[in-house]
Amino acid sequence: MASLLDVVRQCQNDNPWEDKSLRAFCVDGVQIGFVPEHVLSVIEAYLAKEPSVVVIEKDVLTFRPDADAAQRSRDMARLVEWMRDTKKFPDPLDGWRNERYNIYGPGTDGARSSVAFTLERAACGLFGLTTFGVHLTAYLPDGRIWVPRRSRTKQTWPGYYDNSVAGGITAGDPPMESIVRECQEEAGLQEEHVRPYIKQTGLITYFYKTTGGWRQPEMQYIYDLALPSDAIQLAPGDGEAESFDLLDIPTVLDLMRAGKFKANCTLVLIDFLMRHGWLTAENEKDYTEIVSLLHTPLRLPTP
Amino acid sequence: MASLLDVVRQCQNDNPWEDKSLRAFCVDGVQIGFVPEHVLSVIEAYLAKEPSVVVIEKDVLTFRPDADAAQRSRDMARLVEWMRDTKKFPDPLDGWRNERYNIYGPGTDGARSSVAFTLERAACGLFGLTTFGVHLTAYLPDGRIWVPRRSRTKQTWPGYYDNSVAGGITAGDPPMESIVRECQEEAGLQEEHVRPYIKQTGLITYFYKTTGGWRQPEMQYIYDLALPSDAIQLAPGDGEAESFDLLDIPTVLDLMRAGKFKANCTLVLIDFLMRHGWLTAENEKDYTEIVSLLHTPLRLPTP
Repeated sequence: MASLLDVVRQCQNDNPWEDKSLRAFCVDGVQIGFVPEHVLSVIEAYLAKEPSVVVIEKDVLTFRPDADAAQRSRDMARLVEWMRDTKKFPDPLDGWRNERYNIYGPGTDGARSSVAFTLERAACGLFGLTTFGVHLTAYLPDGRIWVPRRSRTKQTWPGYYDNSVAGGITAGDPPMESIVRECQEEAGLQEEHVRPYIKQTGLITYFYKTTGGWRQPEMQYIYDLALPSDAIQLAPGDGEAESFDLLDIPTVLDLMRAGKFKANCTLVLIDFLMRHGWLTAENEKDYTEIVSLLHTPLRLPTP
Repeated sequence: MASLLDVVRQCQNDNPWEDKSLRAFCVDGVQIGFVPEHVLSVIEAYLAKEPSVVVIEKDVLTFRPDADAAQRSRDMARLVEWMRDTKKFPDPLDGWRNERYNIYGPGTDGARSSVAFTLERAACGLFGLTTFGVHLTAYLPDGRIWVPRRSRTKQTWPGYYDNSVAGGITAGDPPMESIVRECQEEAGLQEEHVRPYIKQTGLITYFYKTTGGWRQPEMQYIYDLALPSDAIQLAPGDGEAESFDLLDIPTVLDLMRAGKFKANCTLVLIDFLMRHGWLTAENEKDYTEIVSLLHTPLRLPTP
């Protein structure tokens, strides 16, 4: 069995700031992503033929200074649609979702950040752009946790265990609305069974490198759903999960250590177990290091 | 009124790694602290006259390679007692506590860290050594928080508001035993009113620069005490606090923004309010930045 620190490092497994082979993706001089050289070459070939507000300057991917968010979004969409249609990067673009994510850049008018553009969810990894999600742990007063098993037909992590409810944040959605909708769609939880019991409890941040080598800075908004009893049931909604079970905490820990959970879900569960006093400085030898790894500074613009 | 981000930055107000005027304090080649040049000069003068396992090599403060933890502790004690007796640094040494802190260095035998030596609490700031503490928030089901006011005769932060219970971790104490004892000593809480309701809930870490300019990397173990009612009362024990009041959360937030809390206590309360869903991504504009600042990577050895 792996240690919990090993488990955390399967997700927190990268530091793109230290990889000098990566090129910067910048907006108004502020770095927002990490672009592998072979991706930059493909973009260069595209830009040689197509007019675009996307430009490459001294190996940095960026935008024409006069371009606004709408123009950036339009031309990034054209670029990645061309990549998809010409089969440049089947991983990740064969996983096309038709779902736009907000990409954050430096702030304007005194704000700390602003939406620089929006981009198809499946394309974010090509550019090492930060993605944002919502993850929820539903649990009972006796400590048991609702754990879904991902459908065996899912493209990513088929058959792995998952957080009770989780999803990416679509452009324009506040995190709370995002998670309330995911509760309905993924787990069949009606809004009236969510709003009275849900609490936002923090964030986790990490750098994940996918099996395909794509760099994914990620920030997850974390929620607890303290259900009063098992009278409120979670059940497969949209085909993402094949089943939901109520598992006790020792079972959840065993499954994590055995590598049966989707990698980033283990970070959310470990954070949950730490906040609820199950994992402590006294019973977990790597406690201080794990807490730190759950909150890796991304040093990239965030909302 | 200050923003909560301003409040956080009053405590998370330093990055000694970026201050090139500071000299390294190393154990077996691993940096454990930050020594101002004027302190290093004083140590140099002392070492010219006194035999010691403490050595200065190429502007780095360190130990003779054959010295063990007991020898390092003994000679560091002699050094700081001489500094105290010769009035080299009245701030901080006039605050001498006769209390030893563990100072962590690199691990031995495969461990991630080990106790390199122990040192008088009041002397840690001279060397920018990481200190470890325990901070607890006692609260009621209606959300009110027990808030003590520090005695007006205290040397540090007189008259400021504080966390319900807090203290430093003396060498040899597990964090949980430390906080249970502080509950008794500072707030008159009997053990049987603590153990059933206490939970460890995480860590916060920050770099604090004192008003005297001393560098303090700090790691605080965080606890919640969910009291069932106000039948269990907190009351001044050892003279650290002059009074304890039950304050509602809007009042606590107002006092924090008005600068009435001891600086590091605001970080603990903000972490509490975030974990309990009072401060959210929707109601706090600097949410993502604040969460990050509560978990600054120290990049120094910790337990």
